[in-house]
Amino acid sequence: MPHISNRGEQMPPSPIRKLVPYAEAAKKRGTKVFHLNIGQPDIVTPKPVLDAVRNMNMTVLEYSHSAGFESYRKKLTEYYRRFDIELTPNQIIVTTGGSEAILFAMMACLDPGDEIIIPEPFYANYNGFSVASQVNIFPISSRIEDGFKLPPIEDFEKNITSRTKAIMICNPNNPTGYLYSAEEMNVLRDLCLKHDLYLFSDEAYREFCYDGHKHISAMNLDGLDQHVILLDTISKRYSACGGRIGAFITKNKAVYDAAMKFAQARLSPPTFAQIAGEAAVDLPADYFEGVKAEYLKRRDLLVSRLNKIPGVFCPNPGGAFYAMAKLPVESAEDFCRWLLESFSYNGQTVMMAPASGFYATPGLGKNEVRFAYVLNTDDINQAMDCLEKALETYKP
Amino acid sequence: MPHISNRGEQMPPSPIRKLVPYAEAAKKRGTKVFHLNIGQPDIVTPKPVLDAVRNMNMTVLEYSHSAGFESYRKKLTEYYRRFDIELTPNQIIVTTGGSEAILFAMMACLDPGDEIIIPEPFYANYNGFSVASQVNIFPISSRIEDGFKLPPIEDFEKNITSRTKAIMICNPNNPTGYLYSAEEMNVLRDLCLKHDLYLFSDEAYREFCYDGHKHISAMNLDGLDQHVILLDTISKRYSACGGRIGAFITKNKAVYDAAMKFAQARLSPPTFAQIAGEAAVDLPADYFEGVKAEYLKRRDLLVSRLNKIPGVFCPNPGGAFYAMAKLPVESAEDFCRWLLESFSYNGQTVMMAPASGFYATPGLGKNEVRFAYVLNTDDINQAMDCLEKALETYKP
Repeated sequence: MPHISNRGEQMPPSPIRKLVPYAEAAKKRGTKVFHLNIGQPDIVTPKPVLDAVRNMNMTVLEYSHSAGFESYRKKLTEYYRRFDIELTPNQIIVTTGGSEAILFAMMACLDPGDEIIIPEPFYANYNGFSVASQVNIFPISSRIEDGFKLPPIEDFEKNITSRTKAIMICNPNNPTGYLYSAEEMNVLRDLCLKHDLYLFSDEAYREFCYDGHKHISAMNLDGLDQHVILLDTISKRYSACGGRIGAFITKNKAVYDAAMKFAQARLSPPTFAQIAGEAAVDLPADYFEGVKAEYLKRRDLLVSRLNKIPGVFCPNPGGAFYAMAKLPVESAEDFCRWLLESFSYNGQTVMMAPASGFYATPGLGKNEVRFAYVLNTDDINQAMDCLEKALETYKP
Repeated sequence: MPHISNRGEQMPPSPIRKLVPYAEAAKKRGTKVFHLNIGQPDIVTPKPVLDAVRNMNMTVLEYSHSAGFESYRKKLTEYYRRFDIELTPNQIIVTTGGSEAILFAMMACLDPGDEIIIPEPFYANYNGFSVASQVNIFPISSRIEDGFKLPPIEDFEKNITSRTKAIMICNPNNPTGYLYSAEEMNVLRDLCLKHDLYLFSDEAYREFCYDGHKHISAMNLDGLDQHVILLDTISKRYSACGGRIGAFITKNKAVYDAAMKFAQARLSPPTFAQIAGEAAVDLPADYFEGVKAEYLKRRDLLVSRLNKIPGVFCPNPGGAFYAMAKLPVESAEDFCRWLLESFSYNGQTVMMAPASGFYATPGLGKNEVRFAYVLNTDDINQAMDCLEKALETYKP
């Protein structure tokens, strides 16, 4: 049997996948499982977006340009202009999902052994891309008690070394739903300028900001053009996760050119979904109003139901479609498994993502869970009924 | 300006892209350019394949399983059975093009600094994936005079070190069109078994074998199940390059599980083109007969025209849609650039890929070029007229 790479072992298990076999077993027993564990929206993909692909006029399914179709990149400059982000098509590389944009950023900006500082909890797949690119993630902890606001800047400062090359944020945040304020974004800007660090900004949930708060893109920060890599995706924006279309965006030409070499090696992003992405930019402006109203209704319901359960604390998230909650249990992972293995209420149970997988620091988040509010309010209500009953019953 | 990764600089320039600006300039001057330089087939994508996507019945464009839709993987087992390759759906990971399959193989099987032996000339993008995964490629030279047959096995043996973990082939070969014989495949099998090495087998052109020769898949080799990683793609098979659908296939469960972790980090392969790929397996058996007949006609024309030009030598390739030729020039790269910059015949010129970029050993292939016969015979004839005249005229 030949040698196996150590890289496979370095890949941390997904916080979500570990529980999947238990969910499947529950379904086999006839229990209905409310999936609040993954960020797969139930929102229908806008019909004009799917229709653009259905009506494609094509005889040869060719490679696109390695940076994506020029027509799509031009269209994207229109999209970003709506957020006061002025771009040229040559500052955009269309990627295979946001995933590839993250990988390109790590590979183009960091050498093996270099370090990225990321506030934790963070999107767990960042770990996978760091193993793939052989860079290290240094976590700075944010706290549920503070609503996951940006950790004190001193916590960043004291951990910056000569190997630190970038700070990475997700805004609004997955898994916390936290929306960074203008003040916090400026603090990050100053930090990046002071230490000459890249700011990798994952803005997959840009449109989903609530309570009248405005999203501040890293691209809106003054003086940071050479430092910002914007990582984007159409997955959540248009409920188009399967398209696998994202974007790597920077005004730093040297970084763009380096990332293009990785883009050229893999030839091109997927053709079909670029057609979808291009059509999506032309959706009427009120498209997001409808989707946001739906998510907001869900958030308000979820957060209020959670905070009414004795011993549960859920800070009100300002964006995205995630919420983190502290539960009155010792091990959220054991509790989540128990919910699937041994519990049902009216033939139903609920699946959540144990939060420890979103923390890089061992021991953190053990009594926290992440909710993705990707179910309608009726289902959320029933899921919360289950959770409430379960916490009454649970004897670990 | 922040630090830039050295990785970008390690990425070798593409043998094809360097000339693109010259081709664009030629077109601007009104010169028609025959593109024999890239493997983008002109063959129409089969209508049932595109229609499957046009007629998709979908309301939410969801992630697929990280290994690809189960229905598609099941369908693929049918496809491989036609080549006496028995697989289960759980030995297949659907990838984003063959590109991602290559990257997964390198990352799942090799650690940074480990080595892969590849007969050169080889597909230039292997270099890009080796930089991305921080593994080293050790080239073993094959020779145009030998028609690019497998180099002597001693050349492999003497270069195997403790860091050597895999041998990689492309069969039939890009860029040479060479089709490995059963005898050669057995030699490779014995070598891999003796030294416990992986055999990465890129079989993108499996169907395109000529002159009655049968394709021997690495998966057909006895006793090598734990060593073989089959790298595949629908790009060339169905003229579906833009779909970005490939496959990583292995019967080695530990390797499969390791690769799945990388697959899970990037969530899923593209949804739309999986629908296309699934439909493609149901194309009538005579589909390939038609396409092969067309390619064969082109190969025969190209090779015979080339060998009639004084000083040109082109071995007859047994498969794929590439041919390599030695030209009576000192620098094929200079000649190819000159063709685009300074030459035209009847308002036309020809673009070829200088072969040196397909060799890892400096200095090799300097007077060789690669042709992709992806144009119809009429165009190939006119392109050969250009080449013939050009070689008469050329004074470097």
